[in-house]
Amino acid sequence: MQKIEHIGIAVKNLEEAEFNYSRLLNSQPYKREAVESEMVTTSFFNNGPNKIELLESTDPASPIAKFIEKRGEGVHHIAFAVTDIKAEMKRLKEEGFRVLSDEPKRGADNKWVCFVHPKSANGVLIELCQEIPD
Amino acid sequence: MQKIEHIGIAVKNLEEAEFNYSRLLNSQPYKREAVESEMVTTSFFNNGPNKIELLESTDPASPIAKFIEKRGEGVHHIAFAVTDIKAEMKRLKEEGFRVLSDEPKRGADNKWVCFVHPKSANGVLIELCQEIPD
Repeated sequence: MQKIEHIGIAVKNLEEAEFNYSRLLNSQPYKREAVESEMVTTSFFNNGPNKIELLESTDPASPIAKFIEKRGEGVHHIAFAVTDIKAEMKRLKEEGFRVLSDEPKRGADNKWVCFVHPKSANGVLIELCQEIPD
Repeated sequence: MQKIEHIGIAVKNLEEAEFNYSRLLNSQPYKREAVESEMVTTSFFNNGPNKIELLESTDPASPIAKFIEKRGEGVHHIAFAVTDIKAEMKRLKEEGFRVLSDEPKRGADNKWVCFVHPKSANGVLIELCQEIPD
Protein backbone atom coordinates (compact mmCIF):
# COMPACT_ATOMS: atom_id res chain seq x y z
CA MET A 1 0.00 0.00 0.00
CA GLN A 2 1.87 3.08 -1.27
CA LYS A 3 -0.69 5.84 -0.69
CA ILE A 4 -4.37 6.68 -0.82
CA GLU A 5 -4.90 6.63 -4.58
CA HIS A 6 -8.44 8.00 -4.35
CA ILE A 7 -11.55 8.26 -2.24
CA GLY A 8 -14.76 7.16 -3.95
CA ILE A 9 -17.84 9.20 -3.04
CA ALA A 10 -21.36 8.00 -3.91
CA VAL A 11 -23.50 10.91 -5.17
CA LYS A 12 -27.04 11.24 -6.45
CA ASN A 13 -26.36 13.83 -9.12
CA LEU A 14 -22.94 14.01 -10.75
CA GLU A 15 -23.25 17.55 -12.07
CA GLU A 16 -24.33 18.93 -8.73
CA ALA A 17 -21.53 17.03 -6.96
CA GLU A 18 -18.95 18.26 -9.49
CA PHE A 19 -20.12 21.79 -8.75
CA ASN A 20 -19.70 21.21 -4.98
CA TYR A 21 -16.28 19.56 -5.20
CA SER A 22 -14.88 22.01 -7.75
CA ARG A 23 -15.60 24.78 -5.21
CA LEU A 24 -14.40 22.70 -2.25
CA LEU A 25 -11.12 21.68 -3.89
CA ASN A 26 -10.79 24.89 -5.90
CA SER A 27 -10.11 22.88 -9.07
CA GLN A 28 -11.98 21.27 -11.94
CA PRO A 29 -12.55 17.54 -12.59
CA TYR A 30 -10.03 16.20 -15.15
CA LYS A 31 -12.27 13.54 -16.64
CA ARG A 32 -15.57 11.74 -16.66
CA GLU A 33 -15.66 8.03 -17.33
CA ALA A 34 -18.44 5.44 -17.52
CA VAL A 35 -17.74 2.03 -15.95
CA GLU A 36 -20.42 -0.15 -17.50
CA SER A 37 -19.66 -3.26 -15.45
CA GLU A 38 -20.32 -1.25 -12.26
CA MET A 39 -23.24 0.72 -13.74
CA VAL A 40 -21.74 4.09 -12.80
CA THR A 41 -20.49 7.31 -14.29
CA THR A 42 -17.43 8.66 -12.51
CA SER A 43 -15.78 12.06 -12.33
CA PHE A 44 -12.18 12.55 -11.14
CA PHE A 45 -10.44 15.43 -9.40
CA ASN A 46 -6.72 15.60 -8.70
CA ASN A 47 -5.67 16.71 -5.23
CA GLY A 48 -1.88 16.68 -4.93
CA PRO A 49 -0.80 13.01 -4.84
CA ASN A 50 -4.43 11.87 -4.38
CA LYS A 51 -7.71 11.88 -6.29
CA ILE A 52 -11.37 12.25 -5.49
CA GLU A 53 -13.73 10.04 -7.52
CA LEU A 54 -17.42 10.97 -7.61
CA LEU A 55 -19.72 8.06 -8.54
CA GLU A 56 -23.25 8.39 -9.90
CA SER A 57 -25.33 5.29 -10.53
CA THR A 58 -26.73 4.68 -14.02
CA ASP A 59 -29.03 1.84 -12.91
CA PRO A 60 -31.21 1.31 -9.82
CA ALA A 61 -29.66 -2.16 -9.41
CA SER A 62 -26.07 -0.86 -9.20
CA PRO A 63 -24.02 -1.13 -5.98
CA ILE A 64 -23.87 2.70 -5.80
CA ALA A 65 -27.69 3.04 -6.06
CA LYS A 66 -28.10 0.45 -3.30
CA PHE A 67 -25.49 2.16 -1.13
CA ILE A 68 -27.26 5.53 -1.43
CA GLU A 69 -30.66 3.94 -0.78
CA LYS A 70 -29.34 2.40 2.44
CA ARG A 71 -26.97 5.09 3.80
CA GLY A 72 -27.41 8.22 1.71
CA GLU A 73 -24.63 10.01 -0.15
CA GLY A 74 -21.11 9.76 1.28
CA VAL A 75 -17.77 7.95 1.19
CA HIS A 76 -18.23 4.66 -0.65
CA HIS A 77 -14.67 3.32 -0.67
CA ILE A 78 -11.03 4.12 -0.04
CA ALA A 79 -8.59 3.02 -2.72
CA PHE A 80 -4.93 2.31 -2.01
CA ALA A 81 -2.30 2.26 -4.75
CA VAL A 82 -0.32 -0.96 -4.96
CA THR A 83 2.49 -2.01 -7.29
CA ASP A 84 1.64 -5.72 -7.45
CA ILE A 85 -2.08 -6.24 -6.95
CA LYS A 86 -1.96 -10.05 -7.18
CA ALA A 87 0.74 -10.28 -4.50
CA GLU A 88 -1.21 -7.87 -2.28
CA MET A 89 -4.44 -9.88 -2.75
CA LYS A 90 -2.56 -13.03 -1.78
CA ARG A 91 -1.02 -11.36 1.27
CA LEU A 92 -4.38 -10.03 2.48
CA LYS A 93 -6.11 -13.39 1.99
CA GLU A 94 -3.39 -15.02 4.07
CA GLU A 95 -3.97 -12.36 6.75
CA GLY A 96 -7.64 -13.39 6.86
CA PHE A 97 -9.17 -10.52 4.84
CA ARG A 98 -12.14 -11.29 2.60
CA VAL A 99 -11.08 -10.29 -0.91
CA LEU A 100 -14.14 -9.83 -3.14
CA SER A 101 -12.84 -11.34 -6.40
CA ASP A 102 -10.39 -14.08 -7.26
CA GLU A 103 -8.71 -12.00 -9.94
CA PRO A 104 -8.22 -8.24 -10.38
CA LYS A 105 -10.90 -6.54 -12.52
CA ARG A 106 -10.56 -3.64 -14.93
CA GLY A 107 -11.73 -0.48 -13.12
CA ALA A 108 -12.02 3.23 -13.91
CA ASP A 109 -9.02 5.48 -14.66
CA ASN A 110 -6.94 2.72 -16.29
CA LYS A 111 -6.50 0.50 -13.23
CA TRP A 112 -6.59 -3.12 -12.17
CA VAL A 113 -8.78 -3.17 -9.08
CA CYS A 114 -9.94 -5.48 -6.34
CA PHE A 115 -12.15 -4.85 -3.31
CA VAL A 116 -11.79 -6.02 0.29
CA HIS A 117 -14.94 -6.58 2.36
CA PRO A 118 -15.74 -3.77 4.85
CA LYS A 119 -16.22 -6.31 7.66
CA SER A 120 -12.46 -6.86 7.65
CA ALA A 121 -11.70 -3.13 7.88
CA ASN A 122 -14.04 -1.65 10.52
CA GLY A 123 -16.83 -0.80 8.11
CA VAL A 124 -14.65 0.65 5.33
CA LEU A 125 -14.85 -0.80 1.82
CA ILE A 126 -11.21 -0.98 0.67
CA GLU A 127 -10.09 -0.99 -2.96
CA LEU A 128 -6.64 -2.00 -4.13
CA CYS A 129 -5.63 -0.49 -7.45
CA GLN A 130 -2.69 -0.87 -9.75
CA GLU A 131 -1.99 1.33 -12.77
CA ILE A 132 -2.23 -0.55 -16.09
CA PRO A 133 0.84 0.29 -18.23
CA ASP A 134 -0.03 1.91 -21.61
CA MET B 1 -6.22 21.93 -0.50
CA GLN B 2 -2.82 20.32 -1.05
CA LYS B 3 -3.57 16.65 -0.47
CA ILE B 4 -5.62 14.23 1.62
CA GLU B 5 -3.83 14.64 4.95
CA HIS B 6 -5.71 11.76 6.57
CA ILE B 7 -8.91 9.76 6.65
CA GLY B 8 -10.60 9.54 10.04
CA ILE B 9 -12.27 6.18 10.75
CA ALA B 10 -14.68 5.74 13.68
CA VAL B 11 -14.06 2.42 15.45
CA LYS B 12 -15.57 0.70 18.47
CA ASN B 13 -12.37 -0.83 19.81
CA LEU B 14 -9.05 0.86 19.10
CA GLU B 15 -6.87 -2.17 19.79
CA GLU B 16 -8.88 -4.40 17.51
CA ALA B 17 -8.90 -1.72 14.78
CA GLU B 18 -5.13 -1.21 15.13
CA PHE B 19 -4.71 -4.96 14.66
CA ASN B 20 -6.87 -4.84 11.48
CA TYR B 21 -5.19 -1.78 9.96
CA SER B 22 -1.65 -2.90 10.79
CA ARG B 23 -2.33 -6.05 8.75
CA LEU B 24 -4.19 -4.16 6.00
CA LEU B 25 -1.48 -1.49 5.60
CA ASN B 26 1.39 -3.83 6.50
CA SER B 27 2.73 -1.24 8.97
CA GLN B 28 2.38 -0.24 12.61
CA PRO B 29 0.67 2.86 14.04
CA TYR B 30 3.22 5.59 14.86
CA LYS B 31 1.32 7.11 17.77
CA ARG B 32 -1.73 7.17 19.97
CA GLU B 33 -3.10 10.49 21.15
CA ALA B 34 -6.06 11.49 23.31
CA VAL B 35 -8.07 14.54 22.19
CA GLU B 36 -10.00 15.44 25.32
CA SER B 37 -12.11 18.20 23.73
CA GLU B 38 -13.46 15.62 21.24
CA MET B 39 -13.65 12.79 23.78
CA VAL B 40 -11.62 10.40 21.64
CA THR B 41 -8.45 8.40 21.61
CA THR B 42 -6.79 8.36 18.20
CA SER B 43 -4.22 6.10 16.57
CA PHE B 44 -2.25 7.15 13.47
CA PHE B 45 -0.73 5.16 10.60
CA ASN B 46 1.46 6.60 7.88
CA ASN B 47 0.69 5.57 4.33
CA GLY B 48 3.06 7.30 1.90
CA PRO B 49 2.04 10.98 1.78
CA ASN B 50 -1.20 10.24 3.68
CA LYS B 51 -2.32 9.03 7.09
CA ILE B 52 -5.08 6.90 8.51
CA GLU B 53 -6.53 8.06 11.86
CA LEU B 54 -8.54 5.56 13.90
CA LEU B 55 -10.89 7.18 16.43
CA GLU B 56 -12.34 5.48 19.50
CA SER B 57 -14.81 7.32 21.70
CA THR B 58 -14.02 7.77 25.40
CA ASP B 59 -17.52 9.03 26.29
CA PRO B 60 -21.03 7.97 25.16
CA ALA B 61 -21.81 11.65 24.48
CA SER B 62 -18.92 12.13 22.03
CA PRO B 63 -19.51 12.81 18.31
CA ILE B 64 -17.76 9.52 17.48
CA ALA B 65 -20.01 7.50 19.83
CA LYS B 66 -23.08 9.12 18.26
CA PHE B 67 -21.78 8.51 14.75
CA ILE B 68 -21.25 4.79 15.48
CA GLU B 69 -24.64 4.50 17.17
CA LYS B 70 -26.33 5.93 14.08
CA ARG B 71 -24.26 4.48 11.21
CA GLY B 72 -21.91 1.86 12.62
CA GLU B 73 -18.14 1.91 12.23
CA GLY B 74 -16.68 3.51 9.11
CA VAL B 75 -15.24 6.63 7.53
CA HIS B 76 -16.00 9.59 9.79
CA HIS B 77 -14.20 12.41 7.96
CA ILE B 78 -11.73 13.27 5.23
CA ALA B 79 -9.05 15.80 6.16
CA PHE B 80 -7.31 17.99 3.59
CA ALA B 81 -3.98 19.67 4.28
CA VAL B 82 -4.01 23.44 3.80
CA THR B 83 -1.24 26.02 4.22
CA ASP B 84 -3.45 28.90 5.43
CA ILE B 85 -6.49 27.55 7.25
CA LYS B 86 -8.03 30.96 7.97
CA ALA B 87 -7.84 31.98 4.33
CA GLU B 88 -9.33 28.64 3.28
CA MET B 89 -12.17 28.96 5.83
CA LYS B 90 -12.92 32.44 4.46
CA ARG B 91 -12.86 31.21 0.86
CA LEU B 92 -15.21 28.30 1.63
CA LYS B 93 -17.65 30.51 3.55
CA GLU B 94 -17.76 32.86 0.56
CA GLU B 95 -18.48 29.85 -1.67
CA GLY B 96 -21.49 29.02 0.52
CA PHE B 97 -20.03 26.14 2.56
CA ARG B 98 -21.09 25.79 6.18
CA VAL B 99 -17.91 25.96 8.23
CA LEU B 100 -18.47 24.52 11.73
CA SER B 101 -16.42 26.95 13.83
CA ASP B 102 -15.52 30.61 13.53
CA GLU B 103 -11.89 30.00 14.40
CA PRO B 104 -9.58 27.00 13.87
CA LYS B 105 -9.37 24.62 16.84
CA ARG B 106 -6.42 22.63 18.12
CA GLY B 107 -6.80 19.03 16.85
CA ALA B 108 -4.82 15.81 17.05
CA ASP B 109 -1.34 15.34 15.57
CA ASN B 110 -0.25 18.97 16.12
CA LYS B 111 -2.74 20.63 13.77
CA TRP B 112 -5.10 23.57 13.54
CA VAL B 113 -8.37 22.10 12.34
CA CYS B 114 -11.80 23.16 11.18
CA PHE B 115 -14.75 21.11 9.92
CA VAL B 116 -17.11 21.73 7.01
CA HIS B 117 -20.69 20.43 7.27
CA PRO B 118 -21.37 17.22 5.29
CA LYS B 119 -24.49 18.76 3.72
CA SER B 120 -22.18 20.99 1.65
CA ALA B 121 -20.09 18.04 0.43
CA ASN B 122 -22.50 15.26 -0.57
CA GLY B 123 -22.61 13.60 2.83
CA VAL B 124 -18.87 13.79 3.56
CA LEU B 125 -17.64 15.52 6.72
CA ILE B 126 -14.61 17.54 5.58
CA GLU B 127 -11.76 18.64 7.84
CA LEU B 128 -9.23 21.30 6.96
CA CYS B 129 -5.95 20.97 8.79
CA GLN B 130 -2.81 23.03 9.00
CA GLU B 131 0.43 21.91 10.68
CA ILE B 132 1.31 23.95 13.77
CA PRO B 133 5.00 24.98 13.58
CA ASP B 134 7.10 23.67 16.53
